Amino acid sequence: MAAAAPPPAPTPAPEPATSLPETTPLFTRIRLATPSDVPHIHKLIHQMAVFERLTHLFSATESSLSATLFSPTVLPFNSFTIFLLEASPNPFPVSTFDSNPFFKPLTKFVNLSVPIEDPERDTFKSMDNVTVVGFVLFFPNYSTFLGKPGFYVEDLFVRECYRRKGFGKMLLSAVAKQAVAMGYGRVEWVVLDWNVNAIKFYEEMGADVLNEWRICRLTGEALQAYGGAD
Amino acid sequence: MAAAAPPPAPTPAPEPATSLPETTPLFTRIRLATPSDVPHIHKLIHQMAVFERLTHLFSATESSLSATLFSPTVLPFNSFTIFLLEASPNPFPVSTFDSNPFFKPLTKFVNLSVPIEDPERDTFKSMDNVTVVGFVLFFPNYSTFLGKPGFYVEDLFVRECYRRKGFGKMLLSAVAKQAVAMGYGRVEWVVLDWNVNAIKFYEEMGADVLNEWRICRLTGEALQAYGGAD
Repeated sequence: MAAAAPPPAPTPAPEPATSLPETTPLFTRIRLATPSDVPHIHKLIHQMAVFERLTHLFSATESSLSATLFSPTVLPFNSFTIFLLEASPNPFPVSTFDSNPFFKPLTKFVNLSVPIEDPERDTFKSMDNVTVVGFVLFFPNYSTFLGKPGFYVEDLFVRECYRRKGFGKMLLSAVAKQAVAMGYGRVEWVVLDWNVNAIKFYEEMGADVLNEWRICRLTGEALQAYGGAD
Repeated sequence: MAAAAPPPAPTPAPEPATSLPETTPLFTRIRLATPSDVPHIHKLIHQMAVFERLTHLFSATESSLSATLFSPTVLPFNSFTIFLLEASPNPFPVSTFDSNPFFKPLTKFVNLSVPIEDPERDTFKSMDNVTVVGFVLFFPNYSTFLGKPGFYVEDLFVRECYRRKGFGKMLLSAVAKQAVAMGYGRVEWVVLDWNVNAIKFYEEMGADVLNEWRICRLTGEALQAYGGAD
């Protein structure tokens, strides 16, 4: 059935020449992940594997992540640690995250020039009106030359519709801030040598790219054989 | 004063054609390091910096190592962990290391064709007739794709007069063995791209060399600036 003809539109008021461009407010929060975030974390890691075309190497399950990421005997930052980035159109209400003794959430208000169309808003909903945007997984490493720990960033991922808005930088900054707060000496991560845009970005933020070093990896049957040999 | 002429040498007994070459027995032991090993560990790390021509990057002290390497609240293998390799001309006596609940020392008897002249035997003496030969420092890392931890080997060092005798391989094998025992998925480390002998050795033991990945490092003033920024 055809819709009735709309009523004539009211004449719009003339825009003043000095009007600001329209913006979309977005509230963001970085907080420590908890075991109840594992289903979202698992989906984010899978999306990362798809993005890197490495799904053939992806074998993590929700239960393998749950069993290995949240040790009850090790404090946050002393082992594997995840910061989640969430976004909301409204300010975040006060929650138990605010009284976490190890990490006070970092909140930031951003004005976007174009609203974000998130086709997976329901999949990544973490509470009313709050959506999981990305994560960073990191853990302590150690420099014997400095005689002190640092942080190694294993993964940094922002969902596709939230990219190019500074959210990756917010997550990496949160790790750097935590390293400085703890008196740590370094933050390290790896990048693919053909990813020239990423390398340029990292160099501009002051990071050194160590071109002479190569990662060696013993895994699968070779690890079993070598680790079982005398 | 001139030495008196030596007495005429006794006629040597003829060697049977089937005699074995003379060998020097050496007993080795790999054990968990303890805080009292820090002075030796500090000297080993310094020797490594000299070998790598990186003494300008060396700022570790015995007290910085003591304060950061042996956390009383974290169990061995859950954070920074050091295996020490010791050698002795005699079998190792029973000691408290043998009843360590986290790691039973690995001992091995080797026959050397040439005795080792160790100019630093006194400096690296850890108990009667026992000398510290080398160390490996490692800690857990994490693979989100595997959904499980691995070990990252930060340093592997054997003192100069003990090299080319398989001791480096013994230390690396000990880490691989521990990884297998804990159900971990990987052992990783880095190598300089010009160190072709090392790369060949690692490939022969079954390791993959990841040629596309580069390490990025944020440290010093850049870390302070980035970690302090909003």
